[in-house]
Amino acid sequence: MDLDLIRQLAVPNDTKIVLVVVDGLGGLPHPDTGRSELEAANTPQLDRLAADSDCGLTVPVAAGVTPGSGPGHLALFGYNPLRYTVGRGVLEALGIDFDLQPQDVAARGNFCTLDAEGRISDRRAGRIATEQTVALCEALGRIELPGAHLFVQPVREHRFVLVLRPEGSANGLSDRLADTDPQREGVAPLEPQALAPEAEATAELVRRFVAGSRQVLNGRSPANGLTLRGFASHPRFPSFPETFGLRAAAIAGYPMYRGLAKLVGMAVLPTGSAFEDELATVRERWDDFDFFFVHYKAADTAGEDGDFERKSAALVAFDKAVPSLRELGAGVLIIAGDHSTPAVLAGHSWHPVPFLLSSAWTRGDDVDAFNERVCLRGSLGTFPAAEVMSLAMAHAGRLTKYGA
Amino acid sequence: MDLDLIRQLAVPNDTKIVLVVVDGLGGLPHPDTGRSELEAANTPQLDRLAADSDCGLTVPVAAGVTPGSGPGHLALFGYNPLRYTVGRGVLEALGIDFDLQPQDVAARGNFCTLDAEGRISDRRAGRIATEQTVALCEALGRIELPGAHLFVQPVREHRFVLVLRPEGSANGLSDRLADTDPQREGVAPLEPQALAPEAEATAELVRRFVAGSRQVLNGRSPANGLTLRGFASHPRFPSFPETFGLRAAAIAGYPMYRGLAKLVGMAVLPTGSAFEDELATVRERWDDFDFFFVHYKAADTAGEDGDFERKSAALVAFDKAVPSLRELGAGVLIIAGDHSTPAVLAGHSWHPVPFLLSSAWTRGDDVDAFNERVCLRGSLGTFPAAEVMSLAMAHAGRLTKYGA
Repeated sequence: MDLDLIRQLAVPNDTKIVLVVVDGLGGLPHPDTGRSELEAANTPQLDRLAADSDCGLTVPVAAGVTPGSGPGHLALFGYNPLRYTVGRGVLEALGIDFDLQPQDVAARGNFCTLDAEGRISDRRAGRIATEQTVALCEALGRIELPGAHLFVQPVREHRFVLVLRPEGSANGLSDRLADTDPQREGVAPLEPQALAPEAEATAELVRRFVAGSRQVLNGRSPANGLTLRGFASHPRFPSFPETFGLRAAAIAGYPMYRGLAKLVGMAVLPTGSAFEDELATVRERWDDFDFFFVHYKAADTAGEDGDFERKSAALVAFDKAVPSLRELGAGVLIIAGDHSTPAVLAGHSWHPVPFLLSSAWTRGDDVDAFNERVCLRGSLGTFPAAEVMSLAMAHAGRLTKYGA
Repeated sequence: MDLDLIRQLAVPNDTKIVLVVVDGLGGLPHPDTGRSELEAANTPQLDRLAADSDCGLTVPVAAGVTPGSGPGHLALFGYNPLRYTVGRGVLEALGIDFDLQPQDVAARGNFCTLDAEGRISDRRAGRIATEQTVALCEALGRIELPGAHLFVQPVREHRFVLVLRPEGSANGLSDRLADTDPQREGVAPLEPQALAPEAEATAELVRRFVAGSRQVLNGRSPANGLTLRGFASHPRFPSFPETFGLRAAAIAGYPMYRGLAKLVGMAVLPTGSAFEDELATVRERWDDFDFFFVHYKAADTAGEDGDFERKSAALVAFDKAVPSLRELGAGVLIIAGDHSTPAVLAGHSWHPVPFLLSSAWTRGDDVDAFNERVCLRGSLGTFPAAEVMSLAMAHAGRLTKYGA
């Protein structure tokens, strides 16, 4: 859906929209039973809600394309994920709740092991313990750069995030920088290089950081070197609240999803990490917002672990929260997923994701259960996830007529 | 569908195509019965035709987008309604059967009431009777403008259409003009302003018209002022007959639909306003054309009025005409809608619209009734209305192979 068209057609009213994203919702049949995680789960509440809703399946990005969390969520927020992209450095920063600013440039960093000739002998420095990375990052963070603040933040094991922020009236930074990570062993890390003339000053800052890091890391073991990749600026996306005319709140227990919501301008509400906490937050702030993005994580985690039973159990647990969701009394209630995470694949997949939308203006369809197979019969068919928000707006009565 | 591709592939033959547009065809379930207007209507002829056809649902513009009559029809004529747009002034002129010429600029006008300080106190001048508007338009039409003809045509109540047409060899006009309607009361109408340098001369003509109107309206009550909005030129669309290689006729009892057909270059045939009259016109002119657009209005009117029973009755009445439609013996017979007009919404809506196409080359599907729910099982699925004409052309054997 074209965001300019949405902006042109959006009209205000009092209707509330609740978008629940069940992370990794879709699955695949278990080879022994032929039933998917959703089919194996006993989900009477979801099935009843599906019977009262318009159902279908969403395609997160495009046929056959497996999305990461970024594209999966951006699509559900109405942003064409092939057009609105988030660089790896930015996603890493969001994933650790780093308060990224619009002028920042971020990169993903790895500690690595260098041999006597300075060639990489282990790209992950033996996956050093997170505490070691914390200490190294603290030391690296003391490197001084002219005209820029430096942030070096630990992630987990050998992984960290580098963020450069221009100081005061210093010139803006550019993310048009090549990776220093050669993506293989037996060669030295690459020198920081600008990919465009306007990035030369930023490349020089990164060179100084790398030079400084040699002094810090020299003689250590096994982490005596580092590589950087995925340099990325904070993207400049159209504002979700302005585009849709919605006071929008994000309620998510995990940093990555809070960060994605913040990128598009949603208010990120403090909340606990349990889904019950998230729902309590929605209830407390019900009057302050028109739109609530609520994130449910457990299904994805189990799917990523390849744990079919645990993923089914996570869906059963979600099912028990459905009555509380309905009791909110939203004008439009949507249950969607950012992508499929079939336990049999132990990772994200490209498969379309079950979807339901409940409002006063649904047509209904022949769907009486919420799973991959039955949603195929839904009135919404199999459709792009980036259309979810225009449907939500329409059902909320918040889109005026196009053309006379 | 890309019109250039159609033009490239179109080949002539003797097959006739009949496109029947049932205005506002789609609906929503009645809350008491759970059945839509089509489901509640007894339509044995349509159901039988659906069983012999390929069925599906059309999306007029895009997911969640509620179309006006313009985009709804243009899509069915094969024109991407997000690319081919018709300005409000032009639609208003078409709606009163004004014979708009390609060089004209049209605007929607409102009579309003101004207070002693010249501020708008009533944007609709108390919705004055149409006869008063007729008399005022006659007086305003006598204002003389240098180098341009002026047409001031009444619509209904306080509404009128202003059309400017360049005289003889005068320079072309531009529609890049700001509204003079401030869209609120308590402020004066805005001065006519050009939005681009090439519109300055046209803005000056409008200023002279507004100045002249002050003399005409001064001292009257309640209509002592006017506002203008939606300045629009006659759009320059690719010709339907040339693009599709079809001698195309429009048979519609209402001016708006005749006007839309004329915009794309169809021949508009004189006809009565009853559907029987329209069908008689098709029969009379059968040999003169390859393509007939036939418009059925009653379903939309009832839907707009929120009258579920009357909309169902209008569909039953349409059903009785289906045998006459089949007896025409068209190679391709299509029953489509420009948009849904659910009685429960008392207006147009975004919901996909039932669709059927009958020809010798259909595959058939699991559809034995013509309504929203059963058409979901149709072989055409849910698809953009702008693809209807390429399907029609294909089933008429009028599209040659693409590529060797």
